[in-house]
Amino acid sequence: MSIKTIVWGENVHDQENQVVADLYPKGMHTCIAAGLNLDENIEASTAVLQDPEHGLSQERLDKTDVLLWWGHAAHGDVSDEVVERVANAVLGGMGLIVLHSGHFSKIFKRLMGTPCNLTWREAGERERLWVASRNHPIVKGIPDHFELEFEEMYGEPFGIPEPLETVLISWFQGGEVFRSGVTYKRGAGNVFYFRPGHETYPTYHDDNVKTILKNAVNWAYNEQPRILDPNDAPNVPVTEALEPIVERGPKLHADGEAGFK
Amino acid sequence: MSIKTIVWGENVHDQENQVVADLYPKGMHTCIAAGLNLDENIEASTAVLQDPEHGLSQERLDKTDVLLWWGHAAHGDVSDEVVERVANAVLGGMGLIVLHSGHFSKIFKRLMGTPCNLTWREAGERERLWVASRNHPIVKGIPDHFELEFEEMYGEPFGIPEPLETVLISWFQGGEVFRSGVTYKRGAGNVFYFRPGHETYPTYHDDNVKTILKNAVNWAYNEQPRILDPNDAPNVPVTEALEPIVERGPKLHADGEAGFK
Amino acid sequence: MSIKTIVWGENVHDQENQVVADLYPKGMHTCIAAGLNLDENIEASTAVLQDPEHGLSQERLDKTDVLLWWGHAAHGDVSDEVVERVANAVLGGMGLIVLHSGHFSKIFKRLMGTPCNLTWREAGERERLWVASRNHPIVKGIPDHFELEFEEMYGEPFGIPEPLETVLISWFQGGEVFRSGVTYKRGAGNVFYFRPGHETYPTYHDDNVKTILKNAVNWAYNEQPRILDPNDAPNVPVTEALEPIVERGPKLHADGEAGFK
Amino acid sequence: MSIKTIVWGENVHDQENQVVADLYPKGMHTCIAAGLNLDENIEASTAVLQDPEHGLSQERLDKTDVLLWWGHAAHGDVSDEVVERVANAVLGGMGLIVLHSGHFSKIFKRLMGTPCNLTWREAGERERLWVASRNHPIVKGIPDHFELEFEEMYGEPFGIPEPLETVLISWFQGGEVFRSGVTYKRGAGNVFYFRPGHETYPTYHDDNVKTILKNAVNWAYNEQPRILDPNDAPNVPVTEALEPIVERGPKLHADGEAGFK
Repeated sequence: MSIKTIVWGENVHDQENQVVADLYPKGMHTCIAAGLNLDENIEASTAVLQDPEHGLSQERLDKTDVLLWWGHAAHGDVSDEVVERVANAVLGGMGLIVLHSGHFSKIFKRLMGTPCNLTWREAGERERLWVASRNHPIVKGIPDHFELEFEEMYGEPFGIPEPLETVLISWFQGGEVFRSGVTYKRGAGNVFYFRPGHETYPTYHDDNVKTILKNAVNWAYNEQPRILDPNDAPNVPVTEALEPIVERGPKLHADGEAGFK
Repeated sequence: MSIKTIVWGENVHDQENQVVADLYPKGMHTCIAAGLNLDENIEASTAVLQDPEHGLSQERLDKTDVLLWWGHAAHGDVSDEVVERVANAVLGGMGLIVLHSGHFSKIFKRLMGTPCNLTWREAGERERLWVASRNHPIVKGIPDHFELEFEEMYGEPFGIPEPLETVLISWFQGGEVFRSGVTYKRGAGNVFYFRPGHETYPTYHDDNVKTILKNAVNWAYNEQPRILDPNDAPNVPVTEALEPIVERGPKLHADGEAGFK
Repeated sequence: MSIKTIVWGENVHDQENQVVADLYPKGMHTCIAAGLNLDENIEASTAVLQDPEHGLSQERLDKTDVLLWWGHAAHGDVSDEVVERVANAVLGGMGLIVLHSGHFSKIFKRLMGTPCNLTWREAGERERLWVASRNHPIVKGIPDHFELEFEEMYGEPFGIPEPLETVLISWFQGGEVFRSGVTYKRGAGNVFYFRPGHETYPTYHDDNVKTILKNAVNWAYNEQPRILDPNDAPNVPVTEALEPIVERGPKLHADGEAGFK
Repeated sequence: MSIKTIVWGENVHDQENQVVADLYPKGMHTCIAAGLNLDENIEASTAVLQDPEHGLSQERLDKTDVLLWWGHAAHGDVSDEVVERVANAVLGGMGLIVLHSGHFSKIFKRLMGTPCNLTWREAGERERLWVASRNHPIVKGIPDHFELEFEEMYGEPFGIPEPLETVLISWFQGGEVFRSGVTYKRGAGNVFYFRPGHETYPTYHDDNVKTILKNAVNWAYNEQPRILDPNDAPNVPVTEALEPIVERGPKLHADGEAGFK
């Protein structure tokens, strides 16, 4: 098995900010992909905002099993067309893992239907992540808690729909809490949001973070064939009803006619 | 108490189709609103697609507790600006009840983040709705099952997120099933989808349907003040942290500066 | 409307421990009930472990809308028969609010099906509760966060089923987090677990706690008639099938015969 | 990988009823296990009520990854001690798949906390199962619907907690619907209930049923080490708090002392 994975990076601060460039000389996306490739099940490549079609052509998405998304400063620069393309891939069965400031990405808000807002503070404070769902596959090999000594704070209320499962909850030194690992299913696609990952700290070099991301890719992967038209709403003609019925009463549509959308 | 309620109707077939006009001489929305007004807690008025701003000005929404939405043929004619306005009202605490073919309305797809697709057949077949969540407030006064002799079929798979609660499940004569009553919370707003209501049948004259709609309005109503900016993501300055912390490490943002969106 | 409410107290430390007796001279249950009675919708009385049938006779439960449960040292002394009686009342529609150390009560473990275990520390540390579900009726009038200066710590992982909604999450001074307000439905009954309330601290004198408990009683109340036999599994004779069917194939049971249990 | 699996069968009707014996000459459990062993990932054996300790000794459970449970006439003959042993194995991470009339088994009711009741009719009617969660791993290879020509009817309301995911919903010829495939997590253990399987019909010879059971075992399997004491509630001494705190206020417990249970 080989899970075809793309790590998408905005790649803005990586280029413009010296602190970020020192931590991630080849960009955050490259560091994340290298961590994933330590898992023999995973075959991770990268794509960035600046690539043609942001590196997310239909052809490439069709072959992708799991997509990770990191963005922050340039959410607005992501093309709506690409966002819809990615959304359809997820609805058809591609896994999606949204990282940190990706909570405000177009694709995450598109699939959640909510603001995905929160409170925040950039002070390099201590974050401690607690496992709420023991032995969830995403926290395989992770102890009941682990720490990131320097992180940005995100605080509740987090404007998301109630998750399928709340896997991780963070404690912050300054007094806040946050649901830091939450799962969803959207159409046939598994979605995981994972909070840590501010670009001025070495979060993606942390072993526990690397382990969680590898686990998350394995969890999000769905080996079943992609659903080709996840938006289809097929008419079932009366003559093909599974139980014999006789049409009756007034109607709007001719048999087999497309419905309104 | 008086729950300020708007029944929004597309009002297209009501005008153009003689069958619909005969069943609902003043439009479906008017019939639905009249049913709601039998509940002394509810004060229901109507709005239609053809009104200025579709009858959903900011000023009117600000005073509205619960909105019901029926649309079918003209989802595409609803202005995106009004959809976002309604979405923000829901996220801030307004209740939303989506009816029948409203599964494909812009507002429902916007808040669910999924295709909301299904299979369908217009054959005037029998639908039987079963209560899956006993004594849920939305089914108060409803027996364990009830029938609609003539209805359009909607079949699974229904392209929605896993609901908070699956309250009603339908059986169809032609062999399909459907999750016909499902609840969600989006931001501070309660959302209920209710399946029946094809315009060529007398569904909104049915007593059980009327009871469910009245119950749903009472359930969706949230008496708490509307959240004015449900999309806000406030920065918490280090000096205002709830626990004393000292800023450390490199950072991107100046104190109190707005975050990226 | 008047919501008939019982506050059940174990009433052990209240009698034996001077600290608790000083904080709650008439017992914790009496203090909690007095707080609830400030709400004109609520009519709260008390019951204690030492009463005949623990104060929870079938006759009294039949007239009770909502039960609050505080126990700690004497969970094992609660009669299994009374636990089943209370469980059946909840399954039939009575609301249940489980307080603090009640996480280990027989009734809570009985209805959750899980260990309901946690980590803990009694050090009088600061707890800060954060609202995760904005405008949930249980947090009406509560700001986004509030503090209890002295509390026992409970930490994740909390051994509960995934809740319907996670309403409140706690931050603790010593570094832990906890899902402090969670909702469930069991049969027709609404269940809320609320974490704070260690007996050596003045938690039930706190205004925010009083508000949450009043809200929780109103939320848990179900005005519909109690389901009399919530465990019934009725046979539907072939002759009474809703759609005409013809019996066929081999069978184990004679028509109308009781099923196995 | 080899998923150690036990198929537990009550093995009563298999012995006493000629119809059942003809369909399943070596017992239902043996037929089910043979179907599972077609999957190279699965290594399935059997256990029956009549075995010492019902074939479920602690030693054997310790080595078991997934347990399937079929019982009907003799739920009451299962020892409470073995039920608790199985419950603890599930809470510690063993997968559990409950089949058909197992809805009324002690172990399922123990883990759900609810009556798990339903309506029923034994008439050999047609059942059609619909997929509600597309591409869920449990329905891999299953079309959007499939039929069992002869089955017992189970009808809503089904007295279960709201599932994590509703994967399958059944349509019955006589007019009922039922949530036929539902998932839960209890402690660290994955739980799946699957409805079909009345002993007088050839259900476990059906290819779609076999596929679903194989998928369910793979889904329920958790490769992580078993949690040895899933009921433990450890005290965290003040001196070992993750953040430095000073003990203050009155207390009930001496440091490191066991809590009440």
